[in-house]
Amino acid sequence: MPGDIADEELRAALHRAAEMIADYLGKVGDYPVFPGLEPGEVAAQLPDSAPEAGDCLDNILDDYARLIEPNVTHWNHPGFMAYFAITGSGPGILGEALAASLNVNAMLWRTSPAATELEERVCDWLRQMIDLPATFRGHINDTASMSTLLALAAARHRIPGLDVRQRGLAGRPDVPPLIVYQSDQAHSSCDKGAMTLGLGLDNVRRIPSDEGFRMQTAALAEAIDRDRAAGQQPMAVIATLGTTATTSMDPVAEIADLCERQDIWLHVDAAYAGSAAICPELRPGFEGWQRADSVVLNPHKWMFTPVDCSVLLVRDVNHLRAAFSLVPDYLQSDEKETVNLMDLGVQLGRRFRALKLWMVIRAFGVEGLRQRIRQHCRMAAEFASWIERHEDYELAAPVPFSTVCFRWSVGGVPEEQDKMNKKLLTAINAEGPIFLSHAMVADRFTLRLTIGNLKTTSDHVEQAWRLIRAKADGLVSVERS
Amino acid sequence: MPGDIADEELRAALHRAAEMIADYLGKVGDYPVFPGLEPGEVAAQLPDSAPEAGDCLDNILDDYARLIEPNVTHWNHPGFMAYFAITGSGPGILGEALAASLNVNAMLWRTSPAATELEERVCDWLRQMIDLPATFRGHINDTASMSTLLALAAARHRIPGLDVRQRGLAGRPDVPPLIVYQSDQAHSSCDKGAMTLGLGLDNVRRIPSDEGFRMQTAALAEAIDRDRAAGQQPMAVIATLGTTATTSMDPVAEIADLCERQDIWLHVDAAYAGSAAICPELRPGFEGWQRADSVVLNPHKWMFTPVDCSVLLVRDVNHLRAAFSLVPDYLQSDEKETVNLMDLGVQLGRRFRALKLWMVIRAFGVEGLRQRIRQHCRMAAEFASWIERHEDYELAAPVPFSTVCFRWSVGGVPEEQDKMNKKLLTAINAEGPIFLSHAMVADRFTLRLTIGNLKTTSDHVEQAWRLIRAKADGLVSVERS
Repeated sequence: MPGDIADEELRAALHRAAEMIADYLGKVGDYPVFPGLEPGEVAAQLPDSAPEAGDCLDNILDDYARLIEPNVTHWNHPGFMAYFAITGSGPGILGEALAASLNVNAMLWRTSPAATELEERVCDWLRQMIDLPATFRGHINDTASMSTLLALAAARHRIPGLDVRQRGLAGRPDVPPLIVYQSDQAHSSCDKGAMTLGLGLDNVRRIPSDEGFRMQTAALAEAIDRDRAAGQQPMAVIATLGTTATTSMDPVAEIADLCERQDIWLHVDAAYAGSAAICPELRPGFEGWQRADSVVLNPHKWMFTPVDCSVLLVRDVNHLRAAFSLVPDYLQSDEKETVNLMDLGVQLGRRFRALKLWMVIRAFGVEGLRQRIRQHCRMAAEFASWIERHEDYELAAPVPFSTVCFRWSVGGVPEEQDKMNKKLLTAINAEGPIFLSHAMVADRFTLRLTIGNLKTTSDHVEQAWRLIRAKADGLVSVERS
Repeated sequence: MPGDIADEELRAALHRAAEMIADYLGKVGDYPVFPGLEPGEVAAQLPDSAPEAGDCLDNILDDYARLIEPNVTHWNHPGFMAYFAITGSGPGILGEALAASLNVNAMLWRTSPAATELEERVCDWLRQMIDLPATFRGHINDTASMSTLLALAAARHRIPGLDVRQRGLAGRPDVPPLIVYQSDQAHSSCDKGAMTLGLGLDNVRRIPSDEGFRMQTAALAEAIDRDRAAGQQPMAVIATLGTTATTSMDPVAEIADLCERQDIWLHVDAAYAGSAAICPELRPGFEGWQRADSVVLNPHKWMFTPVDCSVLLVRDVNHLRAAFSLVPDYLQSDEKETVNLMDLGVQLGRRFRALKLWMVIRAFGVEGLRQRIRQHCRMAAEFASWIERHEDYELAAPVPFSTVCFRWSVGGVPEEQDKMNKKLLTAINAEGPIFLSHAMVADRFTLRLTIGNLKTTSDHVEQAWRLIRAKADGLVSVERS
């Protein structure tokens, strides 16, 4: 039959892919992080229509090597220091490849016992690693966007007397607007969750943050009181531990006190920084998150696990099950005392994501993970110290972890500085070896350097610093000429 | 540092994994499809806590081979004929492994040009393959649960004057209940979507299906009229092409007429059967879906792509963008005319799923895919003919594709027959080589045999038929003794 693949052809292709992967990981640092492409250049090299005839795996791998590999933005590059820098580590890649060969759907225990039980076990390992109480139960979603959406749905369903799952939100005089509180530094996924769940962006309160970009608890308390007085229903507070722009830490202990007093669901978004809680010396900033109702932590961010892998830990998982469990007759089974992970979320289909996370934790060990996180923090602190000591640069925010927000404090009014920093970012990223991103911090265009790739060394950070200064010098020369 | 992995150790482990994957695909048919396990048996063999020290990749792969591989339900087994049988094919496994090594996040064009452009191109290939108009734009989600949720969110946002995204559904006298219509055969993910979006299960109308399990359009029209008369707002109709229980096909042309007249969003759930539309002779049942507003098709179901891969095709993608686009400042970029796929859904993080789908289509070619789908349909038709010819068995539904619903028509009242069919299913699945599932069809416990694995041959189907009859005979003997 056309497209038949002999077992030995596949075996050879798998070995070739093994070589390609090992080679790629060895040489990725030689690529420019961002490929010098204009929109449409890749598409122009792809046929308009699917081929009628099949092709051999070797030709397809050739095309991959020619068209795809050089034309991605290299997130696995040691010079990738944008957004949150991440790592698809070797053990994680092995896990993904093996999971694809098993191709199980871990929707029910019965549809894959090992996938279900490994997922529960490895999430409990993670819970212990970050020192959350044993009452928390974890499961794996694709992204923090979904984990947060599920947590908010559980919060919505927990409000007594509403039965949102059954009766919905619309056309009900008995349902006031349901309000979500988060700081003005919270991640956009919190907004998307509120949009998706039918709460509406108008019902997301953006609580001002202080000079350290931490939510102001007093302002939160006032907002809650104001909403209650106006007949609205506070539904959930989202505290962020490690905000996206500056990795600031909301005062979660104070917020937890308030949520307990007010009986409001507390969701903690620790998608990035949660991994740091495996280091005891970094835990003080997390103190209080034990009293959250739900916590999200993404091992695909700073635990060296390939995307996608987001762990949602919920203190009373029955709230999540009450919001989502819906078992159609054709999936009903007689097994008692089993966990069917599809009951805890939107998605019926569930990839075997626990495998890669298990392999990563096994390969590095918790101590190995700690040392890598510490090393990333040390490198960031060193870079921050260079910024602080140089008269032309300034830190834009404290550096609690491995993300540094800084500005080139070139003379002129703020608007002019913003423009120059933007030009500087473009010039740095056009060069190739280093890729940074930006954020608006206190309404100012700010450069961001994050460290999260396992292959990033002090040399790369020094290279970034040299490049930043060289490009800034170049811009000054142009301005003067 | 503890856990350090030398490049050569990783290279060797990748080659070992290549061998393990090739061996697994060769021998998977020797495993019992369902491992003979009680709940907790795998967990009991896993340490309670994560290891402090790292381990070498060889030891981890040993543990994988010992603990994980034998203890999954083998969805990649040629005797897996339950739920919808699927295949994680060789080209798809290669794609997953390579994607994990790149580890890109295709949220923005700029965060991975090749991933974004390949996704758009391969979705357009698929659109042409199934003969949908060029106005449809596709993108890839993890599951049909999410694709359907996104489509319903677009439908919700399209209703004029409501601005649900901004203002939400609660506490608004101007928003009536928003109603979703689907047949009584629709997939549970449609219900979950309505729950999640805040519409409520009470606002999902389950339209009766006819004797062929197809939605009754007249009943749909009446329900819409009734709801409008009661001041409710019809929001979306979900037509299913290939229902989960019997793979019946809703009369989508009639439904499209009605939706056009009534200005209601039409979403087509073709997650399973949509792949069959690549065969011209199987297209008549799909006629009319060209007029849908959105269509979901899962290549991870019947297009030999490893989970997860669900393509959502939307006729006017601006509706989806209007419902979801939300670009935080730190992701704003200056590129014009680029597509940022994160604008089309909930998730910000987007794995490079297009790679595996591209490799599958390339390897088999469209003609190769067609021939495999036809072969699966032929095998199912043959099995159905055996059922029809045997006096002790009966078909429970027509067989339009590769799924056969049947019953052992052993004597007795319906309740007794149901009990015996349930016993028969348990006995078949306990044996090992074949794994079937069930569905309630016309309120009767019904056995389901589906064919979707590339390694399933006529021999496996004959083996299934022999096993069914042998186990039935055994049950009769026990009853008599």
